[in-house]
Amino acid sequence: MPVALYPGTFDPITYGHIDIAKRASKMFNKVYAVVADNPNKNPLFTVEERLDMARAALEGIKKIEVIRYNGLIVNCLDEYEATSIIRGLRALSDFEYEFQMAFTNRNMNKAAETVFLMPNEKYTYLNSTMVKEIAKLQGDIGKFVPEFVKEKVEAKIRKLRRKKLV
Amino acid sequence: MPVALYPGTFDPITYGHIDIAKRASKMFNKVYAVVADNPNKNPLFTVEERLDMARAALEGIKKIEVIRYNGLIVNCLDEYEATSIIRGLRALSDFEYEFQMAFTNRNMNKAAETVFLMPNEKYTYLNSTMVKEIAKLQGDIGKFVPEFVKEKVEAKIRKLRRKKLV
Amino acid sequence: MPVALYPGTFDPITYGHIDIAKRASKMFNKVYAVVADNPNKNPLFTVEERLDMARAALEGIKKIEVIRYNGLIVNCLDEYEATSIIRGLRALSDFEYEFQMAFTNRNMNKAAETVFLMPNEKYTYLNSTMVKEIAKLQGDIGKFVPEFVKEKVEAKIRKLRRKKLV
Amino acid sequence: MPVALYPGTFDPITYGHIDIAKRASKMFNKVYAVVADNPNKNPLFTVEERLDMARAALEGIKKIEVIRYNGLIVNCLDEYEATSIIRGLRALSDFEYEFQMAFTNRNMNKAAETVFLMPNEKYTYLNSTMVKEIAKLQGDIGKFVPEFVKEKVEAKIRKLRRKKLV
Amino acid sequence: MPVALYPGTFDPITYGHIDIAKRASKMFNKVYAVVADNPNKNPLFTVEERLDMARAALEGIKKIEVIRYNGLIVNCLDEYEATSIIRGLRALSDFEYEFQMAFTNRNMNKAAETVFLMPNEKYTYLNSTMVKEIAKLQGDIGKFVPEFVKEKVEAKIRKLRRKKLV
Amino acid sequence: MPVALYPGTFDPITYGHIDIAKRASKMFNKVYAVVADNPNKNPLFTVEERLDMARAALEGIKKIEVIRYNGLIVNCLDEYEATSIIRGLRALSDFEYEFQMAFTNRNMNKAAETVFLMPNEKYTYLNSTMVKEIAKLQGDIGKFVPEFVKEKVEAKIRKLRRKKLV
Repeated sequence: MPVALYPGTFDPITYGHIDIAKRASKMFNKVYAVVADNPNKNPLFTVEERLDMARAALEGIKKIEVIRYNGLIVNCLDEYEATSIIRGLRALSDFEYEFQMAFTNRNMNKAAETVFLMPNEKYTYLNSTMVKEIAKLQGDIGKFVPEFVKEKVEAKIRKLRRKKLV
Repeated sequence: MPVALYPGTFDPITYGHIDIAKRASKMFNKVYAVVADNPNKNPLFTVEERLDMARAALEGIKKIEVIRYNGLIVNCLDEYEATSIIRGLRALSDFEYEFQMAFTNRNMNKAAETVFLMPNEKYTYLNSTMVKEIAKLQGDIGKFVPEFVKEKVEAKIRKLRRKKLV
Repeated sequence: MPVALYPGTFDPITYGHIDIAKRASKMFNKVYAVVADNPNKNPLFTVEERLDMARAALEGIKKIEVIRYNGLIVNCLDEYEATSIIRGLRALSDFEYEFQMAFTNRNMNKAAETVFLMPNEKYTYLNSTMVKEIAKLQGDIGKFVPEFVKEKVEAKIRKLRRKKLV
Repeated sequence: MPVALYPGTFDPITYGHIDIAKRASKMFNKVYAVVADNPNKNPLFTVEERLDMARAALEGIKKIEVIRYNGLIVNCLDEYEATSIIRGLRALSDFEYEFQMAFTNRNMNKAAETVFLMPNEKYTYLNSTMVKEIAKLQGDIGKFVPEFVKEKVEAKIRKLRRKKLV
Repeated sequence: MPVALYPGTFDPITYGHIDIAKRASKMFNKVYAVVADNPNKNPLFTVEERLDMARAALEGIKKIEVIRYNGLIVNCLDEYEATSIIRGLRALSDFEYEFQMAFTNRNMNKAAETVFLMPNEKYTYLNSTMVKEIAKLQGDIGKFVPEFVKEKVEAKIRKLRRKKLV
Repeated sequence: MPVALYPGTFDPITYGHIDIAKRASKMFNKVYAVVADNPNKNPLFTVEERLDMARAALEGIKKIEVIRYNGLIVNCLDEYEATSIIRGLRALSDFEYEFQMAFTNRNMNKAAETVFLMPNEKYTYLNSTMVKEIAKLQGDIGKFVPEFVKEKVEAKIRKLRRKKLV
């Protein structure tokens, strides 16, 4: 009964993440979407906000649960009795970084098997960073994230703008 | 109960293929190693020889069965009630070709989900073509394929050499 | 009044080629789709067949004309008083080859400017070789080429099959 | 009568940018070099300084005008009645990022056509970041930027050095 | 009697660096491991700490000497009468950046010859940044760096943690 | 006293090969340019012709000797008491193949150290295959190969043309 983790910063969750999560849920008995609680990356949203958005976005997809984790993903594997790490494979730059991560994880935990899935081709070039950049330039991000995520991104950016932080 | 196909030419099967097959067998209820019966590729071995070697090499790995298929892998998915296609992801050139194949397969069969697994890093740069080239130059391929495959490759090449075909 | 060449083997023309040709036609006063008459590449179709299919597929797109050329594209530039070479940029492997071609062309003709255009993302991984492989395995290529091209590809392959050539 | 935008940070403009701008000017009726007014990227020069240098460097090239823009490039397209976005294609890492940008722009504005041009091969590996790094290490950047840009870069870095900021 | 420089930030030195340094020492009469004194990169360790770790790690390898340098590597070449720059070539992203650096160095100093060596394949995906990230998440970095480096990294991170800086 | 091999098909030798050979000769005490006697690759020139052209092209470069070898390069290393294999690193596709070769060689002979050198940037995209293709299309290859090589390539192609082989 294989269990998988789908780790990420989800800052914020996009249609690309949702697409991968759905595909993973069809292959595994249980998939944990693991929201990384890593303060180093300097995310736009707090971990609680990112958890809330991920939960709302993945609600209704069977066998998926959203969790928060602070630490190495290989330790998270042990804790949740998971054996696989799900990663979306989008584009070339991804590929190298993902390979590096996957070999490092396997190095630290022999049983850590990274499983790469491809998103729908319309999400091949989508990522959270670009979504935030477009929103900062007041572009419409409605094609990239669900409506309630769009609202939260826009509200957050308005707030930062008032504080002269963007 | 997900079922997966692991298609390839397996001309001949290498330790890299065996490594991926083992990894896949831990994730799926059933994995069919699908030996492609494609005369276009001009393989060194006949499809029967490739089947025999693959069967011998994968014997003893639970839940794996070696089959022969002549046609599109997406049709094979339907026939064997499989939903996933396993591919080993080795190096950059792979990546592009594999993406192209995976999108094409999904285009022809919406349910076709390609799952990329990474071999052990010592097999990252191993492939059947290089194995055959080394054997033709009378190098030792014992690190790349099982002993009985090595013998068959060497015998085949001796035979071709006598006929002045290599 | 810039004039551009869009060279290729077009063996056969696909929706990806048509997409690029349309985009080019909006930018240039005249675009010549140049069907290469190179017997080395061992195409499935004769140059006349490839010309016919390209003409039928590009008919009705303003400012595009299909021509046949035997020789270096940089000489063709001079002959047709063109200054730009159009190339569709699809995927990584393309990129390297295209760069090589483009620098070589510029090296031989200083005025040769290669212009890269991106096809619609649904054609990012489409190419003629894959179309032919799918057809040989009796898959449906209707999503990749126009109906009359599909018929010609299938007829050609049936013919080769009767002669035991595929 | 196609009009094109050539957007960038131009921090500072290099011979690579100038080379691409010249090539574009031969293909389009009008090319706007668009200096991005994006405070997020933390440029070395103010937008006014970057505009001044770009204007001085591109002066005398027919049909080119330097403008400043704050917002999404797809909105700038509408405002200037342009249909094409010019991008220099230098190296692999570029390629991926540029593809992502180009698909995102097309996603937001269907008419947004990105046109990739190759710089002279001697500028293939040149970019503004490396120019600034070399200048910080007191290397000679005279081969990479025009004389008056070199002076401004060196003056700016001397100023930052006095403030202990580099 | 060729002399080579092996420049890097060495923040901290890893088994990958040590592997490359050993390989270089077999090819050159003298190899200087050049610890870059560049405050811009915001290293975890001071230049003195990085020098100390590099010296301890490379002690006992013949013909290697660890030096500190502040400036362009091409000037360092002149100063130490070296002609070659050693670089480890690990993965794709490396490749592009390294090419850019190597051409830039050659541009500034015609005699600057960059020599790329491959580390043992088990270090193909290892770099200092990943080592530090793992240590911050309290993972064991004992497989990636010598014991005394591991202790220093862990001590440094404990110190930063007490100051709430990681 | 390190000795290096510079293996290749040299079908025919180009300015790119000559450039790399010169660079290698400055680093090693002796460099053997190894012309591979591999009938599988179906070269345009016989091994004797390729040897003759390589010898003429590399004549006068100190410490370089042209040899012929039939077999694995790792065996050639032993025979000539060499420890390094020189490879020119040109472009991305090269990189992957070269890595694969280098790891395979090291796998078969632990002491086999592959040393990658970069050609002059004007040769970055040059290779023998493109030279032959241009010559077949009656383009001028004088920028890519020495005059006497150009004459031999043109004579060879005229001969093949008379026999209707190109």
